[in-house]
Amino acid sequence: MIPSGIITLTTDFGYRDYYVSAMKAMMIGIHPDVRLVDVSHAVPAQDIMAAAWVVKHSAFLYPSGTVHLVVVDPGVGTARKPVAALIGDQIFVGPDNGILPLVAEDRPAQAYHLGNTSYWGSDRSKTFEGRDIFAPVAAHLCKGVPLAEVGDRIAELVVYRWARPVADKDGIQGWVVHIDGYGNLITNIPGDLIHLYANNRRFKIYIGSTILKTVSSTYADVKTGDPVAHVGSAGMLEVAVNSGNAEVLLGVCKGAPVSLVYQ
Amino acid sequence: MIPSGIITLTTDFGYRDYYVSAMKAMMIGIHPDVRLVDVSHAVPAQDIMAAAWVVKHSAFLYPSGTVHLVVVDPGVGTARKPVAALIGDQIFVGPDNGILPLVAEDRPAQAYHLGNTSYWGSDRSKTFEGRDIFAPVAAHLCKGVPLAEVGDRIAELVVYRWARPVADKDGIQGWVVHIDGYGNLITNIPGDLIHLYANNRRFKIYIGSTILKTVSSTYADVKTGDPVAHVGSAGMLEVAVNSGNAEVLLGVCKGAPVSLVYQ
Amino acid sequence: MIPSGIITLTTDFGYRDYYVSAMKAMMIGIHPDVRLVDVSHAVPAQDIMAAAWVVKHSAFLYPSGTVHLVVVDPGVGTARKPVAALIGDQIFVGPDNGILPLVAEDRPAQAYHLGNTSYWGSDRSKTFEGRDIFAPVAAHLCKGVPLAEVGDRIAELVVYRWARPVADKDGIQGWVVHIDGYGNLITNIPGDLIHLYANNRRFKIYIGSTILKTVSSTYADVKTGDPVAHVGSAGMLEVAVNSGNAEVLLGVCKGAPVSLVYQ
Repeated sequence: MIPSGIITLTTDFGYRDYYVSAMKAMMIGIHPDVRLVDVSHAVPAQDIMAAAWVVKHSAFLYPSGTVHLVVVDPGVGTARKPVAALIGDQIFVGPDNGILPLVAEDRPAQAYHLGNTSYWGSDRSKTFEGRDIFAPVAAHLCKGVPLAEVGDRIAELVVYRWARPVADKDGIQGWVVHIDGYGNLITNIPGDLIHLYANNRRFKIYIGSTILKTVSSTYADVKTGDPVAHVGSAGMLEVAVNSGNAEVLLGVCKGAPVSLVYQ
Repeated sequence: MIPSGIITLTTDFGYRDYYVSAMKAMMIGIHPDVRLVDVSHAVPAQDIMAAAWVVKHSAFLYPSGTVHLVVVDPGVGTARKPVAALIGDQIFVGPDNGILPLVAEDRPAQAYHLGNTSYWGSDRSKTFEGRDIFAPVAAHLCKGVPLAEVGDRIAELVVYRWARPVADKDGIQGWVVHIDGYGNLITNIPGDLIHLYANNRRFKIYIGSTILKTVSSTYADVKTGDPVAHVGSAGMLEVAVNSGNAEVLLGVCKGAPVSLVYQ
Repeated sequence: MIPSGIITLTTDFGYRDYYVSAMKAMMIGIHPDVRLVDVSHAVPAQDIMAAAWVVKHSAFLYPSGTVHLVVVDPGVGTARKPVAALIGDQIFVGPDNGILPLVAEDRPAQAYHLGNTSYWGSDRSKTFEGRDIFAPVAAHLCKGVPLAEVGDRIAELVVYRWARPVADKDGIQGWVVHIDGYGNLITNIPGDLIHLYANNRRFKIYIGSTILKTVSSTYADVKTGDPVAHVGSAGMLEVAVNSGNAEVLLGVCKGAPVSLVYQ
């Protein structure tokens, strides 16, 4: 794997503290030519699924050999392992807390336990492994150190799975797995599943107290202020409100069930 | 126009989602040496005027040949055109929804309809043209592809205009067009207009239930906690509170009228 | 001092306005090869201590000769001086309002009054010295202009000090000086002070209405939802809640007293 020279950063550190800057300083110190790209530092605190959502929908668009630093780490300082993994042609670095298998989905992952302390930083706090372990290792990997150097191969990562949608004779049952900044309700029902099973059938989609009868192709297929179901840019069924905020207007939370029922 | 190698990004995507990262990945993939500069991703959702305000007060400070990607797009997926335009010595890429004429003001704009799909990305969603059209085209333009290559010249852009202040024998009437992060109330009354008409005259400025009798040169001309009118860094009349938040303390909203009345 | 080519940015400008972008444009115009690193633009408005906290815990991790632009400036447009200072092997540029001595702590600072207008920008507003003075001077310093060129040496900076913790025969008295994005309560009591005086002694820590009897080594030494005292990544005593928000759950504000009392 030839490094692309890029490291992306995804954390729940927020934008008000020194945490992100400290990681950037460590990486620039080790690899002065590194190119740093902020993905998000506004992942909700300790929300592993939100972090995985953000990472999995953009990481694989980067050039081959890009390193993705993903530090959302409710278990910092515990026995959970610091790891790096090759998934597809991208390298990921972070805590082994379930994020990486969520990012990988069906792609195989080659994982390594970051045990080689010679690639860590010289400071060692128990509460900021982002600065002390993950950022330095990411910089070394981006500089060309092979994965097998930073630690031992491990057979598998801690696994955490997305809820899977269920399709049966009555319809498809799924859940809202993400709500974006516009208030769009993004479900775990792939557009492909709808095309496969619901094409040329009449159905109703139930979400909160709202009922929809079609999957549109864009927001503007309905009037301003009306709810609309469509397959969004992540390839999943989304429920939105044209020029409005579906989370607020439909009163639906993350985790809410979504049912597509055949008529 | 020789490209500067820089692309700036202004969107209402927020900082929590993969949308910004997906656009950056597309641009780096097409033009690995591109320099990306985040202007803002916190434009209020679908607020065309706020986007134009942010862009017009910084875009023209960049080196000649900089590309500005401006994606605030209430009409994504509708018939509104994707466009690029040369305004002054800067290039702008985004939806043709009125932002660019607001940015241009009195500068002439040479506009092109982005019809040449060979410069688009290979994915094509109807709801994320930022990733699929605007970012790829911006990267190609930044790499040196001429504007005339990305699509056909169009005679004019969709026009949206700032409200204009009115000056008559009684005084000057304007509106609050922007409120910044400090709560400063920025009006559409240019400082030049005040110097032209109100110099050496006595007047009162009415805003909400507050009355001011002078235009000061800086916040600190009044006591801490007092309201102050001054010509701000955008060249416009602003009403602020020294060391305080005028939006909150004066209870004034965007769109509120501001009257300067001669005595 | 050989410049590192890097300028970091710390401001209270927020992410919605053109202020940050205008400073970046000015710096790129003067020094096209400059590398810009955002530290934070979400410092609470005009909060000098928060700005100093963020800067002092990351600035000294950057390569020698890095320029740190720090613009949190309640007194913009008043008589307070624009300054630059060499502290350790890092250069700082901003208003002389007390931030830099907070950042420096016990390190000596060589300070200069930015009086040489030939390194300023050509625009001159009284309310946006970030764009008009600080950013242009930072870019020139980063390009290699010596500190002594940008203005005259001054004997000292305006001084603002952190409250100091007090250790006496009864225990250690300190204060909450920062609350991070997770709600962790960070005090001004150095871990070293606790090791020096409280090692091998029994004590109680009082904060708000919460009492703690030990200093743990990490969050996970207590059960989920329980409060925990530990020495954080800044080397200071922090009070956190495992997997929770201590600010909210313990109802403690910035400035609250923290007492460690020997038993």
